[in-house]
Amino acid sequence: MGSLDGERSITGWAAKDSSGLLSPYSYTLRKTGPEDVFIKVLYCGICHTDVHQAKNEVGFSKYPLVPGHEVIGEVVELGSVVSRFRIGETVGVGGIVGCCGACEPCNSDAEQYCRKKIWSYNDVYLDGKTTQGAFAPNMVVNQKFVVKIPDGLPPAETAPLFCAGLTAYSLMKNLGLNKPGLKGGILGLGGLGHMGVKFAKAMGHHVTVISSSEKKRDEAINHLGADEYMISSDPSAMQAANDSFNYILDTLPVHHRLEPYISLLKLDGKLILSGGFISSPMQFFVSMLNMGRKSIYGSLMGSIAETEEMLEFCAKKGVTSTIELVKMDQVNSAFERMEKGDVKFRFVVDVAGSNPSP
Amino acid sequence: MGSLDGERSITGWAAKDSSGLLSPYSYTLRKTGPEDVFIKVLYCGICHTDVHQAKNEVGFSKYPLVPGHEVIGEVVELGSVVSRFRIGETVGVGGIVGCCGACEPCNSDAEQYCRKKIWSYNDVYLDGKTTQGAFAPNMVVNQKFVVKIPDGLPPAETAPLFCAGLTAYSLMKNLGLNKPGLKGGILGLGGLGHMGVKFAKAMGHHVTVISSSEKKRDEAINHLGADEYMISSDPSAMQAANDSFNYILDTLPVHHRLEPYISLLKLDGKLILSGGFISSPMQFFVSMLNMGRKSIYGSLMGSIAETEEMLEFCAKKGVTSTIELVKMDQVNSAFERMEKGDVKFRFVVDVAGSNPSP
Repeated sequence: MGSLDGERSITGWAAKDSSGLLSPYSYTLRKTGPEDVFIKVLYCGICHTDVHQAKNEVGFSKYPLVPGHEVIGEVVELGSVVSRFRIGETVGVGGIVGCCGACEPCNSDAEQYCRKKIWSYNDVYLDGKTTQGAFAPNMVVNQKFVVKIPDGLPPAETAPLFCAGLTAYSLMKNLGLNKPGLKGGILGLGGLGHMGVKFAKAMGHHVTVISSSEKKRDEAINHLGADEYMISSDPSAMQAANDSFNYILDTLPVHHRLEPYISLLKLDGKLILSGGFISSPMQFFVSMLNMGRKSIYGSLMGSIAETEEMLEFCAKKGVTSTIELVKMDQVNSAFERMEKGDVKFRFVVDVAGSNPSP
Repeated sequence: MGSLDGERSITGWAAKDSSGLLSPYSYTLRKTGPEDVFIKVLYCGICHTDVHQAKNEVGFSKYPLVPGHEVIGEVVELGSVVSRFRIGETVGVGGIVGCCGACEPCNSDAEQYCRKKIWSYNDVYLDGKTTQGAFAPNMVVNQKFVVKIPDGLPPAETAPLFCAGLTAYSLMKNLGLNKPGLKGGILGLGGLGHMGVKFAKAMGHHVTVISSSEKKRDEAINHLGADEYMISSDPSAMQAANDSFNYILDTLPVHHRLEPYISLLKLDGKLILSGGFISSPMQFFVSMLNMGRKSIYGSLMGSIAETEEMLEFCAKKGVTSTIELVKMDQVNSAFERMEKGDVKFRFVVDVAGSNPSP
């Protein structure tokens, strides 16, 4: 593993071009600085953003690119001034590993909106090196972006909380939806959507899953505990539900019409777009917002403080992700299946348990 | 004037077809019911919605159509159970004259969102008669929709508070913007925009007027008290202001791009669309909202309770509309000028002072 004195060479799984196909790639990690935590990656969730980035669909990908930003790991080595963690402790890392620390978002516990934030991969760190993600045996991360995992949370099922879970939790909190008695709709039942259902139920909401097909009815109702299941192409069901939802959490990661979902909202209802990057513009009619004081929101993950708060909430309420565990060399087929919506509900790579180790 | 016993025949000014040209039109008002207030119209503001409706641009206009929903009047006669008003008192009426009284919006002081609300004109009242607006000598209005004007507010300059003013005040209150220290942008400086500047200043905001030309700079800064004036087509000014506004009150009543204004918003910034009916869909990129937890809102006027609260605020802070007073027979040229943005800042018809009376 080397030591504080030097850089380590490791082999992760990287996309090499916009085919997005991942294969082994060797690179070096910076030496563990005074503020850094050197982590052995145990598990890493697979998020739609990983596919977008691997395939350069956002347009800024630099190859080779090692994805992975829903990270559970074990502390292996600590920088000289790090006292918050112990060797051997289980920790997590999410979508960002740096920020300026001085701007308004950074001073408002919203550092994920810092203009100088550093993404966990496909970005440039302070030392000029490319950041690489957690489809790899190790990461070196500034302690500010490392979070302890509370006792009782199973590590593999906790990995997706670091992006999908955090996104759902943070927006509910910031929009004042973290209170009982609301009626919520969850549009799309992938990684983010299923976490949306779990958080909404844990917060005491009446939850309707809105889906394009019958395919996930059983899981939605019987496994995730949703109260209702509605098919978005059923005009009579949609019509009957008009004007009844406090919010719709729209997790669809592709372009789609918004009107049907704005119609579902009641007075002061919120359409929350959290499906991530969509390249073409969305449309809406102003009058549909005007006629019910409705609104459309976007948000991005959550802060480190919110991550800690969410993990406490999850430990207390027993909320974790429902996952399919795969080995590192299955990542390409997992990408393919996820793009087809064929996963219940989040893939997690058993990074440390993959043989040969990545 | 007749009496409680019968209907009155009056002559107002109506659009007869989608040319939107107004001319005298005689019709009857219902007799003053137990809950009604019979009003002599003194002044009535002209709102963009009046033009849209006169020209059937929303698509539901029934002719003849008497516009006018920013009404200041004098109480002439009271229904048998009305005790809140006195004969001779100055009162106002806004955009709606009926609601169901039983739904959630009605029970949340937001009756303007009631699905059974009755518009002040171009709608059907409970008795089956067409509602007609205040470009006419009289109205009969249920007391629930009649509001006292506090002492000290000049009647003509108060008329536009009943739609333009209320819209601005209500949305600021409902979005939590009615507190000092915020940085606001007002896009467009018509009737609604100039009320936005006045309310924002009275609430203690730093206010930038955003306009397509230099034309209104002097009025914005020297008359309305705006702090800054920015030209929307000046890329360097717009660039420099990026990421700095808590909100943009977008009052443009025609289709336009939203991206430049979303970019101006800082973390948690709100783009508030209040320009009224726009027939073609608006567009935005999800990522522009995601990257700053930004949102897009729409709202419609305000409630009766908010109207009363707003008028108290206006009386206390000295906020009124800046108007151009016109006679009833000048209404068609006022419509034309308003469509060109050629009014500082709201036309008000001196209904009672028009000779011959309408």
